[in-house]
Amino acid sequence: MWIQKEIILKPKERGFHLVTSEVLSQIKGISSIKVGLMSMFLKHTSASLTINENADPTVRQDFENYFNRVVPEDESYYIHTDEGSDDMPAHLKSSILGTNLTIPITNGLLNMGMWQGIYLCEHRNQGGNRTIVVTIFGE
Amino acid sequence: MWIQKEIILKPKERGFHLVTSEVLSQIKGISSIKVGLMSMFLKHTSASLTINENADPTVRQDFENYFNRVVPEDESYYIHTDEGSDDMPAHLKSSILGTNLTIPITNGLLNMGMWQGIYLCEHRNQGGNRTIVVTIFGE
Amino acid sequence: MWIQKEIILKPKERGFHLVTSEVLSQIKGISSIKVGLMSMFLKHTSASLTINENADPTVRQDFENYFNRVVPEDESYYIHTDEGSDDMPAHLKSSILGTNLTIPITNGLLNMGMWQGIYLCEHRNQGGNRTIVVTIFGE
Repeated sequence: MWIQKEIILKPKERGFHLVTSEVLSQIKGISSIKVGLMSMFLKHTSASLTINENADPTVRQDFENYFNRVVPEDESYYIHTDEGSDDMPAHLKSSILGTNLTIPITNGLLNMGMWQGIYLCEHRNQGGNRTIVVTIFGE
Repeated sequence: MWIQKEIILKPKERGFHLVTSEVLSQIKGISSIKVGLMSMFLKHTSASLTINENADPTVRQDFENYFNRVVPEDESYYIHTDEGSDDMPAHLKSSILGTNLTIPITNGLLNMGMWQGIYLCEHRNQGGNRTIVVTIFGE
Repeated sequence: MWIQKEIILKPKERGFHLVTSEVLSQIKGISSIKVGLMSMFLKHTSASLTINENADPTVRQDFENYFNRVVPEDESYYIHTDEGSDDMPAHLKSSILGTNLTIPITNGLLNMGMWQGIYLCEHRNQGGNRTIVVTIFGE
């Protein structure tokens, strides 16, 4: 069985956002798969997808602060600066964290750990809508 | 053909560990797949999975030393500090390295490069057992 | 439907290279898939695959300069130094950026964002040919 859908996440402020519910609310068909996978592919180069801690919001604040330090804005050696000081760091963060996830489906449910959630990492100051191709497949 | 199994890796000390054999010893069915994929999904937010050099153990020591420097403990700006000084860095390392791999299967064998092996990266001082959902599919 | 093929990318100088066309020119069968995925797996530990901006070449220059700074050569604590000063940093960059991508296929085409392209990230000074296992599957 194959199900594929483009979903849209609403604009979010720069930072790390727990979006498990926002993603799942837009997808039908997981419950009919006994064994399978859900692939998520973000169609952007200045945001990213990752899986991390789903309980304490301060983890997400620390993520934002850490990545702003390790990928600074306004480095003198950046050449690609036309689109704003947040642009080149956003591209770098996007590739460090990645834009694609594959999550197992077991007995009709996503099979993540109890502390895991899906993060949309918005690296631009004004990122706008973000589109994700979700592909569910299995039997 | 779909095969899915949760496997458990025994507790390991903090560091980077070559686990190709420990993983494969717990999985049956790869040999019956001519063309396919093996998906690995780690159900934790303070460890990670990656693929790297399988021969010289000093590579794994350098990995541990590098990541301890680039993701330091006890940064003054960390807010999420209740679970110990190794906790927030473990979450960050987990997302930088990732918790999910997809490896090709060809003629009944994993089709990795001759120098590649699967690493379990344990970022906590006392990580305990680590659970991985392994999904094998193909024809 | 399953199609799997090992493709070879020609030797490239150290740096970040847009290879979408070089990859697609070696693959047949995507056009016959309505809904599916393309998995790419790089069989090396000193190069990587990522997806990022496909238009302005200065983005790729900034990537090379950034990663050379955040993963420096000749760190005094590196133990694995026998294969040259570019070797250990290449292993680290390979795991930070990753060696495996899963890209959706929709109506016979790769379904990436309009600004996305596939990068081969060559982290060695003399990397040589790079082999990728490409697996296309869907219906």
